[in-house]
Amino acid sequence: MNLFYYPAACSLADHIALIETGLAYKLLSINHERKTEDGRDFLSINPKGYIPTLELEDGVFLTENPVILNYIAEKSGKLLPKDGMIRWRTLESLAFMASEIHASYQPFFRDFPEPEKVRAREKLVKAFAILADQMGDKKFLVSDEMTIADCYLFWVLMVAPKSGVELPENLRKAFDRMRALPSVIQALAEEGLG
Amino acid sequence: MNLFYYPAACSLADHIALIETGLAYKLLSINHERKTEDGRDFLSINPKGYIPTLELEDGVFLTENPVILNYIAEKSGKLLPKDGMIRWRTLESLAFMASEIHASYQPFFRDFPEPEKVRAREKLVKAFAILADQMGDKKFLVSDEMTIADCYLFWVLMVAPKSGVELPENLRKAFDRMRALPSVIQALAEEGLG
Ligand SMILES: N[C@@H](CCC(=O)N[C@@H](CS)C(=O)NCC(=O)O)C(=O)O
Ligand SMILES: N[C@@H](CCC(=O)N[C@@H](CS)C(=O)NCC(=O)O)C(=O)O
Repeated sequence: MNLFYYPAACSLADHIALIETGLAYKLLSINHERKTEDGRDFLSINPKGYIPTLELEDGVFLTENPVILNYIAEKSGKLLPKDGMIRWRTLESLAFMASEIHASYQPFFRDFPEPEKVRAREKLVKAFAILADQMGDKKFLVSDEMTIADCYLFWVLMVAPKSGVELPENLRKAFDRMRALPSVIQALAEEGLG
Repeated sequence: MNLFYYPAACSLADHIALIETGLAYKLLSINHERKTEDGRDFLSINPKGYIPTLELEDGVFLTENPVILNYIAEKSGKLLPKDGMIRWRTLESLAFMASEIHASYQPFFRDFPEPEKVRAREKLVKAFAILADQMGDKKFLVSDEMTIADCYLFWVLMVAPKSGVELPENLRKAFDRMRALPSVIQALAEEGLG
């Protein structure tokens, strides 16, 4: 499978999941002219124009982070239980991070006017409190076993300082623990962020 | 199952899915003091404070629209194929509508300053073009069979006029077709929107 990515962008979640599950993958970056590393026109691959985009074996393209992560879990049989509440809580956390947290990072990525940043920070403080509550003193967000939610969480926490919002202590600790995982170390190194 | 909802809000998607799949459900609204129709404190049910929230048989609460819809499909065995690309496209469309479209409605729901509305409209125009392209001349968004993506699409299209963005013709027609479905007629009537 090919993962279209930008270094340090939200595709890092999928990159970590690919390594952690042991699936074979190739990373392909996109340049400023929207050409992929292997010379294709990115907009004709994904008209939405954003990453992550996953190219499946049969030349089909899949988008949307929570769904690409779900696909990687399904394909590998790892990082997401087949049923039970852990499965639903994992999918719920992914949807929450995508719609409520990732979206609230926009003002900082693109330097929107200050009032928008203030509002985004308020939303983020609330959202991180929800995540901190959910994590409690577990090893990972949803249970003591790693799930695809943690792959996305790692990126969400890595980017948080850009917003100026301070992370609750248990989330900071979770970030540090994940930062030391072999899969995370490898993913960061492969994106030139070692 | 109990669905916590506000009339005409995004919980309409889940309401339609519950009717369409034939699952037993009860609707519970929330008042301005955050009390549920049956007298409970909504914030202790869902600290995120938003709907949709689904109360499962065992008193567990599930949040996030794309995930509640997925749960309803799984529980009923309807509106989402067990595997294959139709499944992935359905989940992808739900994630797209939640993170890119629903989030872009905020400036119109809460009357944010005009520049934010302008930017949201630009995003919406692009997002509707993606959906229109995906729909083509099919009967429903992902295939000629209805999926949970259509339940959410109906709400997304119903709200679009608030943004001032004009819908592509095939989406307008899809809205009109869905508006005539018995499940949609019933859901709107039960929310007092007959
Ligand atoms: N709804 C999408 C959003 C993806 C997204 O916003 N990707 C960013 C990087 S973190 C991007 O590619 N931005 C560049 C652009 O939009 O041109 C998802 O959850 O996957
Ligand atoms: N990420 C959530 C967002 C849900 C949401 O924004 N719900 C709105 C209604 S459409 C709401 O309850 N707003 C009231 C509030 O936030 O207090 C989801 O996709 O379910």
